[in-house]
Amino acid sequence: MSVIWGVGLGPGDPELMSVKADRLVRGARHVAYFRKAGRPGRARAIVAGMFREDAVEIPMEYPVTTEIPLDDPRYNEILSAFYAEAAGRLADLARGGDEVVVLCEGDPFFYGSFMHLHSRLKDVADVQIVPAITGMSAAWTATGAPVTWGDDVLTVLMGTLPEAELTRGMLNADALVVMKVGRNLPKIRAALAAAGKLDRAWYVECASMAEERVMPLSEAGLDTAPYFSIVVVHGQGRRP
Amino acid sequence: MSVIWGVGLGPGDPELMSVKADRLVRGARHVAYFRKAGRPGRARAIVAGMFREDAVEIPMEYPVTTEIPLDDPRYNEILSAFYAEAAGRLADLARGGDEVVVLCEGDPFFYGSFMHLHSRLKDVADVQIVPAITGMSAAWTATGAPVTWGDDVLTVLMGTLPEAELTRGMLNADALVVMKVGRNLPKIRAALAAAGKLDRAWYVECASMAEERVMPLSEAGLDTAPYFSIVVVHGQGRRP
Repeated sequence: MSVIWGVGLGPGDPELMSVKADRLVRGARHVAYFRKAGRPGRARAIVAGMFREDAVEIPMEYPVTTEIPLDDPRYNEILSAFYAEAAGRLADLARGGDEVVVLCEGDPFFYGSFMHLHSRLKDVADVQIVPAITGMSAAWTATGAPVTWGDDVLTVLMGTLPEAELTRGMLNADALVVMKVGRNLPKIRAALAAAGKLDRAWYVECASMAEERVMPLSEAGLDTAPYFSIVVVHGQGRRP
Repeated sequence: MSVIWGVGLGPGDPELMSVKADRLVRGARHVAYFRKAGRPGRARAIVAGMFREDAVEIPMEYPVTTEIPLDDPRYNEILSAFYAEAAGRLADLARGGDEVVVLCEGDPFFYGSFMHLHSRLKDVADVQIVPAITGMSAAWTATGAPVTWGDDVLTVLMGTLPEAELTRGMLNADALVVMKVGRNLPKIRAALAAAGKLDRAWYVECASMAEERVMPLSEAGLDTAPYFSIVVVHGQGRRP
């Protein structure tokens, strides 16, 4: 049985892919990736032009994204069936002796979509993971300042959390990253203000990509933002 | 004035360097790196055999590591003078028109030593940072399981913190990474037990390297560990 690779592509700049990811993507006979129906796919866009000529592409199109709310039981049912079907297709290929490279934005085991395939494949296939540079590393690098010093506590929060939980997490942290910003920006702003950290917060969009935008969050003046934008608050810890 | 590059090398496996880091290291005329006196240097070991033939190496040797306690005022004075002198040497080279690549273990802006040069160089030189795969990404990848799901809160703690602060941080987190383990292992174990997370904790040593060791922390049975070992507790968040 051949390997199914979960290959992290990093934050978006193709030069920030690992040497190993670059090698696997360029050599892959079968390349699978998630995408929204009718879109080219964000992961695929990172590696555009890198596939071998005879590569077989396996787009895995989400049956639903924001049409059904997350807490609707149908959301879980539909996505669960989708992941099971996609995992089955990849396992069939591996059983037939073909290696498969699955393209993963960011780092596969850090809030990644591939995790939902991994949990369904790990007991029936040889799944290997290639870690990658996270979007948050690219985001704090884009701010031009270190995110953590000395004994700073770093906390990573999802903007989808309730405001009270965001505030609590922000109060307990020295350095802070908030992901999944999108429509949650006003809530994130309010939580940062309640935690006394709004004036130190940075807003980063499309870190490491041509469209990268970096500014103090107070100057962003937005009520909504791309889902993959990131908020960073730098730690202030010990330094000689 | 030429660029001073802070180049993240990632967790240790040279294939996990970014394509950009690989390119910069192989092309560098001047390569600087920190090391303990009398040692080859951990960062340099990652890129052994990659320098061009005429590369000039600039080892920056720590004047002190564990000989003086962190809270002794002399520690800060000695290190501060050391970083100022090293920054001055690099700035002189850049002023002379020579690009300098500074090798950085892990990700430069995430608890990295290069930050102490960056803070002294950023206003007098053109300093560019290449982010990298963190040691913690390699560590959770080594455990074979995703670290964060859905809305999980991830907290990163330094083992050097007091036990009460470790426990508090662990109680507030869904997923957990503890770095700077070393001699702090018994304290980390006690804090994990107090937070009810000891039975889910993993111990990872030399992630991504030939000497990698991974096991449940309860089976590690050690009172001390290499400074760069990492403890991981996986989140249990929402998943379809």
